[in-house]
Amino acid sequence: MLGQMMTMPLVISSLIDHAARYHGDTEIVSVETIGGIVRTNWCTVAADSRRLASALKKSGVSDGGRCATIAWNNYRHLEIYFGVSGGGMVCHTINPRLFPEQMIYIVNHAEDEVLFFDRTFLPLVAKLKDQFKPVKAYILLGPRDEEAAATIPGLQFFDDFVATGDADYQWPELDELTASSLCYTSGTTGNPKGVLYSHRSTLLHTFAVCVPDALNLSARDCVLPVVPMFHVNAWGVPYAAAMVGTKLVLPGPGLDGDSLVKLIEAENVTVAAGVPTIWQGLLNSAQKSGAKLESLQRTAVGGSACPPSTIKAFRERHGVETIHAWGMSETSPIGTANALLNKHRTLPEDEQHRLRLSQGRPLFGVELRISGDDGKELPEDGVAQGDLAIRGHWVVDSYFKQDKGTAKSGKWFMTGDVATIDPDGYMVIKDRSKDIIKSGGEWISSVELEGIAIGHPDLADAAVIGAKHEKWDERPVLVAVKAADKNPDPAELISFYEGKVAKWQIPDAVVFTDVIPRNATGKILKNRLRELYGNVLMEKG
Amino acid sequence: MLGQMMTMPLVISSLIDHAARYHGDTEIVSVETIGGIVRTNWCTVAADSRRLASALKKSGVSDGGRCATIAWNNYRHLEIYFGVSGGGMVCHTINPRLFPEQMIYIVNHAEDEVLFFDRTFLPLVAKLKDQFKPVKAYILLGPRDEEAAATIPGLQFFDDFVATGDADYQWPELDELTASSLCYTSGTTGNPKGVLYSHRSTLLHTFAVCVPDALNLSARDCVLPVVPMFHVNAWGVPYAAAMVGTKLVLPGPGLDGDSLVKLIEAENVTVAAGVPTIWQGLLNSAQKSGAKLESLQRTAVGGSACPPSTIKAFRERHGVETIHAWGMSETSPIGTANALLNKHRTLPEDEQHRLRLSQGRPLFGVELRISGDDGKELPEDGVAQGDLAIRGHWVVDSYFKQDKGTAKSGKWFMTGDVATIDPDGYMVIKDRSKDIIKSGGEWISSVELEGIAIGHPDLADAAVIGAKHEKWDERPVLVAVKAADKNPDPAELISFYEGKVAKWQIPDAVVFTDVIPRNATGKILKNRLRELYGNVLMEKG
Repeated sequence: MLGQMMTMPLVISSLIDHAARYHGDTEIVSVETIGGIVRTNWCTVAADSRRLASALKKSGVSDGGRCATIAWNNYRHLEIYFGVSGGGMVCHTINPRLFPEQMIYIVNHAEDEVLFFDRTFLPLVAKLKDQFKPVKAYILLGPRDEEAAATIPGLQFFDDFVATGDADYQWPELDELTASSLCYTSGTTGNPKGVLYSHRSTLLHTFAVCVPDALNLSARDCVLPVVPMFHVNAWGVPYAAAMVGTKLVLPGPGLDGDSLVKLIEAENVTVAAGVPTIWQGLLNSAQKSGAKLESLQRTAVGGSACPPSTIKAFRERHGVETIHAWGMSETSPIGTANALLNKHRTLPEDEQHRLRLSQGRPLFGVELRISGDDGKELPEDGVAQGDLAIRGHWVVDSYFKQDKGTAKSGKWFMTGDVATIDPDGYMVIKDRSKDIIKSGGEWISSVELEGIAIGHPDLADAAVIGAKHEKWDERPVLVAVKAADKNPDPAELISFYEGKVAKWQIPDAVVFTDVIPRNATGKILKNRLRELYGNVLMEKG
Repeated sequence: MLGQMMTMPLVISSLIDHAARYHGDTEIVSVETIGGIVRTNWCTVAADSRRLASALKKSGVSDGGRCATIAWNNYRHLEIYFGVSGGGMVCHTINPRLFPEQMIYIVNHAEDEVLFFDRTFLPLVAKLKDQFKPVKAYILLGPRDEEAAATIPGLQFFDDFVATGDADYQWPELDELTASSLCYTSGTTGNPKGVLYSHRSTLLHTFAVCVPDALNLSARDCVLPVVPMFHVNAWGVPYAAAMVGTKLVLPGPGLDGDSLVKLIEAENVTVAAGVPTIWQGLLNSAQKSGAKLESLQRTAVGGSACPPSTIKAFRERHGVETIHAWGMSETSPIGTANALLNKHRTLPEDEQHRLRLSQGRPLFGVELRISGDDGKELPEDGVAQGDLAIRGHWVVDSYFKQDKGTAKSGKWFMTGDVATIDPDGYMVIKDRSKDIIKSGGEWISSVELEGIAIGHPDLADAAVIGAKHEKWDERPVLVAVKAADKNPDPAELISFYEGKVAKWQIPDAVVFTDVIPRNATGKILKNRLRELYGNVLMEKG
């Protein structure tokens, strides 16, 4: 027997319609790529999203056609998010930091019909466009620009293009399982793989991230997504902001600490979301300038494990709560977020802070499990480390153009992470399974050792790898970047670990380098480091 | 083109599974009908829910079969919520305050196969059971009780019955549109009509009510639903509590102020939900005993308009924020909730308090509109009063056993309320459309006039009706119940309105009565009052 309630699809157009109708004059503040600030609001963004959808359909983009972006976080990119998906096409965000050959692969694999890009990326697009075979239209995010027009023949301009759309365009009625957006994972090996989100998966993820135990977003908030809109839909923040009607501050290309501090103070930002390295820059800038960041209440941190020192600095210097979260492109992305339970309310503060260090508990809508090498489920006792698997409403089923279910192992998606889960569901990512250090049968988390090293005042950056070892197979080695004007002693760096981890987990050696190599999404290229330094203990030995 | 994400149904069993897995030891505190307190937790409630579902299926209840309850808020009722719906049957909650003939109608119309009831209602059930034709099994919520067994031949007992179920029972895989629960509206005229919720409508409502701008529920909260579980699923609180893993306090039959104050203080309740009359009792009790209600942060108020004096008393005496909400059986029930916007943060406190008096803005997932007598949409300017319509994911499409779409007018459900909506979406219920006072072409809100009268220290209760008037068609008359040992002067009561409403809205007369007649859900029976007092101005005139 079926229920007798209204049914209507869970679609992205309903998010922007809601924001326009009930939060129409709530501000969207956008830093322009060419400098300066544009102030718009949900009402105008919604109207322009409709017009954009209309213009794209008029220009011949197919139903489900992919419209790519290479763009910063700004209001035009926001209009593309809602206009493209709302109009039944697929918003394909491309990471501009990808290697050119990866970008060419992605554009061709996705069969992008349109490419929107910011002025910053004009030289890049001009260079690669002959190899972007399926792209029929190039649209620069801005008003007409003669220099750009001369660079790319037939180039169109966003502001003119939107004006060709109809103001009274009606969103199509879509099946909620329709594809809405596409994001390629930037693995450290092999070709990127596309994750094709649906309207339904996006809406359910959006509901789940707004709740108090996740991003905790209300209409009083002013949200600054520093996490790029080309990075798993900026963790869903643009959709969540529309659902609850927050003020939104889009920082454009300036993601340095000084720019962010200024923006937070000028716009009274209450919540900011980004990766740990961004926050280190922000904290350093605030310390130098003496900025207090008074409006800021919370930072959501994900992308990689947040060093405890960063969480502590936010709390102690600025009274800012860090929401430690975990996820990946394949999980829309948020799978877990750290929030305390009722029984923790009476714990001493130190204990509470310790609990806040983990990546948190699964949001309602996803489930986790860990398993050993034999695939058998491991106990959730906070000790057993195993391969982390996830399933739920916003988890990938198969990669784009691959057969149904092929991203799954049984009913689960294997994350490639190694984690522990405690009896309350608090999960700690110990490492990527290929990076964990296997020393004499014991597993050592390179991530944990890195988090400690980052907290050393004389280091600017750090990575830990498993270097080959005759007796123990692998032993940890710290790859460190000295802070400006500092010259730390390797022995002192090693002794810095004492009391913080078990003795047998302390790195055997330190090597200094000028820069830690990272991929397009900021993940450390451990395989590159292993090529460079994987034999340092053998040579010594 | 479809997205390539996992799809799984939105079902109620996933709520209790989540609570059991990630909030297993979070407490459920339950006041027993026969006195005393039972302390259980989500893990045990989940296990017993499965066992209950198994026992019901073994006993022959059909797929989609209705299992009725006449019960207080307690842990067994909670297990019925999850076990019955999770097992693919329909949980049909019956309001024990209904007139016997209505109850008989409902049980027969719903074709209830099982009737669960609390000890309190043994005499009632014994008296009516011969007329409950379809009921095959009567189950008393408790352990075996010889006196009860002697009263109803074949009576079963919940604790024994659950034990007949299998512990390893697996939830069936249901279509998310499957019916999950049933609640009859208690209109003031005509036969009650059933609203048949689906798993999907329930899950989407649950997501929507957990967000910060609605009930704002986190795993740190301890929630006390005073609103009965037979009253539109206790506003969805049991489902929401499972979704976020709150501690839950179920107050059993003792809903008087003293009992509630004790429970709030003993269990450190942070959020309580109920109708205005309950809160008046609570506030009076706290004032007498000097109880501070220190743990209490928020009260959610709905069911009828909350008098401004109640909101003020909570805020000023106890630092408690009142979340003013609106909804009805047909809307699952929450349609709107009052929370401020970003632009309101800088308003003076008085202004903020004034904004908090309205029933709030629509949750994401529903839309509102108001229309005039001609059916045309009225402006949302905060002034125009019109018939309120709603549509969305958790709004009724048709009443139980009626044809698809028949509860709708076009795409909308007409609520029967008259409301204003301001440009930000803040809605104020002015009245039921049949109760609004039409005076010389102008509409006067009886609800607003009642809210003011309730704030008068010499009155215990009040209602306002439109009485017939020769010149103006109708004029407001205040029907007042004197507070104990008070003897207010009618002229003074009338002058109490001065400066609070426009002069032409002030009641023409006051009549005193001993009690305001109410229906089973506490709504004032205005038609009864109009029969009694509708001619007082004519007789005078």
